[in-house]
Amino acid sequence: MRLARYLYRGRIRYGILENEILREIEGTPFQGIRELGYGVRLEEVELLPPVFPQKIVAVGLNYRDHAEELGMPLPEEPVLFMKPPSSLLPHGGTILYPKMSQRVDYEAELAIVVAGECKDLSVEEAGGQILGYTCANDVTARDLQVKDGQWTRAKGFDTFCPLGPWIETEVDPSDLEVRLYLNGELRQASRTSAMVFGPDYLLSFVSRVMTLYPGDVILTGTPAGVGEMRPGDLVEVEIEGIGRLSNKVSAPEPSTGR
Amino acid sequence: MRLARYLYRGRIRYGILENEILREIEGTPFQGIRELGYGVRLEEVELLPPVFPQKIVAVGLNYRDHAEELGMPLPEEPVLFMKPPSSLLPHGGTILYPKMSQRVDYEAELAIVVAGECKDLSVEEAGGQILGYTCANDVTARDLQVKDGQWTRAKGFDTFCPLGPWIETEVDPSDLEVRLYLNGELRQASRTSAMVFGPDYLLSFVSRVMTLYPGDVILTGTPAGVGEMRPGDLVEVEIEGIGRLSNKVSAPEPSTGR
Repeated sequence: MRLARYLYRGRIRYGILENEILREIEGTPFQGIRELGYGVRLEEVELLPPVFPQKIVAVGLNYRDHAEELGMPLPEEPVLFMKPPSSLLPHGGTILYPKMSQRVDYEAELAIVVAGECKDLSVEEAGGQILGYTCANDVTARDLQVKDGQWTRAKGFDTFCPLGPWIETEVDPSDLEVRLYLNGELRQASRTSAMVFGPDYLLSFVSRVMTLYPGDVILTGTPAGVGEMRPGDLVEVEIEGIGRLSNKVSAPEPSTGR
Repeated sequence: MRLARYLYRGRIRYGILENEILREIEGTPFQGIRELGYGVRLEEVELLPPVFPQKIVAVGLNYRDHAEELGMPLPEEPVLFMKPPSSLLPHGGTILYPKMSQRVDYEAELAIVVAGECKDLSVEEAGGQILGYTCANDVTARDLQVKDGQWTRAKGFDTFCPLGPWIETEVDPSDLEVRLYLNGELRQASRTSAMVFGPDYLLSFVSRVMTLYPGDVILTGTPAGVGEMRPGDLVEVEIEGIGRLSNKVSAPEPSTGR
């Protein structure tokens, strides 16, 4: 099932997407899914990021092909970082090129959406706490990432977490194709089977550090082929069985001399 | 004025604290402060962290005495990291010693509470967007901080962000004494005048990266004298003109063999 979050007639709603029709559900999908009996065409709504999480936890260097490309050893344990909720951007939204950076990169990633409150999950229990999967772009100001050492600023600018277009609840995440297109050209192409730590392992690991809540998001790392985006570019993350997340890159905001 | 957030008769409330009495206000202080005309004694309520923020942004190495102690050069720009909202702990709450770590440290810090939604503030504008200040303990699993490089896991465990006891709205933050007591012994003693970047500068800087929302928190870094806590310890952060934040450290949770 595909679950979308959207704005329609001034109100935020969730719906089940099928054949370009959104069938609205009661409340959010985290309290169980009850259809309200009416729908609206996809083209009539404004899609929002499919969740508004308390936290977005992400993982560094989690694809074997990306580690090889960088000549780095595989990590023994996941290395965690966070992106703030203020960095979320929906499908179709514009990535704002920050004044502070001269080098902004795309990173295509599979995103896990957490179903319920959970803590200290075993790997075996983790799958039962995953509502579904969506596409993410872990946009990164590469120059600031290198300069700061800590990745919060480089990955935390407003609009630096495109997420969507919707949540797919029925896909098996173990061997999906992950692709990134820049202006229609294929730039990243890998499979989730090349992950060092799979989704269930990652959710279990994060839950042994911090309590997770419904709608929290875990980004699972990016494969080989990361590279630069320029103002005006169109960037698209496509994951097999989920969908395609498309965003434009803006020109830098004019400097205010601050 | 001192603003506390607390649980009383099953409901979360805000009140103005004076002479051990909490005078309840309508809603939250972020929509303006209107007293409801009744109060309750401080000892009758359960204090909560004084805000529930969307994000807690923190700053590395921001005291000259701490940089000297470590033999590190002063940073040119603030280095940002984040702690998740799930790490919040109120005054009086128990810090849970995580199974994953063998070395957990205290770090006494002045915390800024953001008043309203803001973005791209100048240093001159920043003060007008600060509701007030409170005490924080940036609890850190030092072994994992070194191991991971990224600080999210080391600083992100549940209960690793004691915050409180309340917000002081009228204090001038430019030269306050910051102290940390471990089991009653003074371990950190410095003044906010030893900060490399002051509160207004920090809020301006963070707001040029990410939009801030009412109740968001910025931790301003710790002075010299950080050190280890052991299970059973009592740790207290005291800041002149604000108050004293007290927490106990628990024994590690029993291992579940996961």
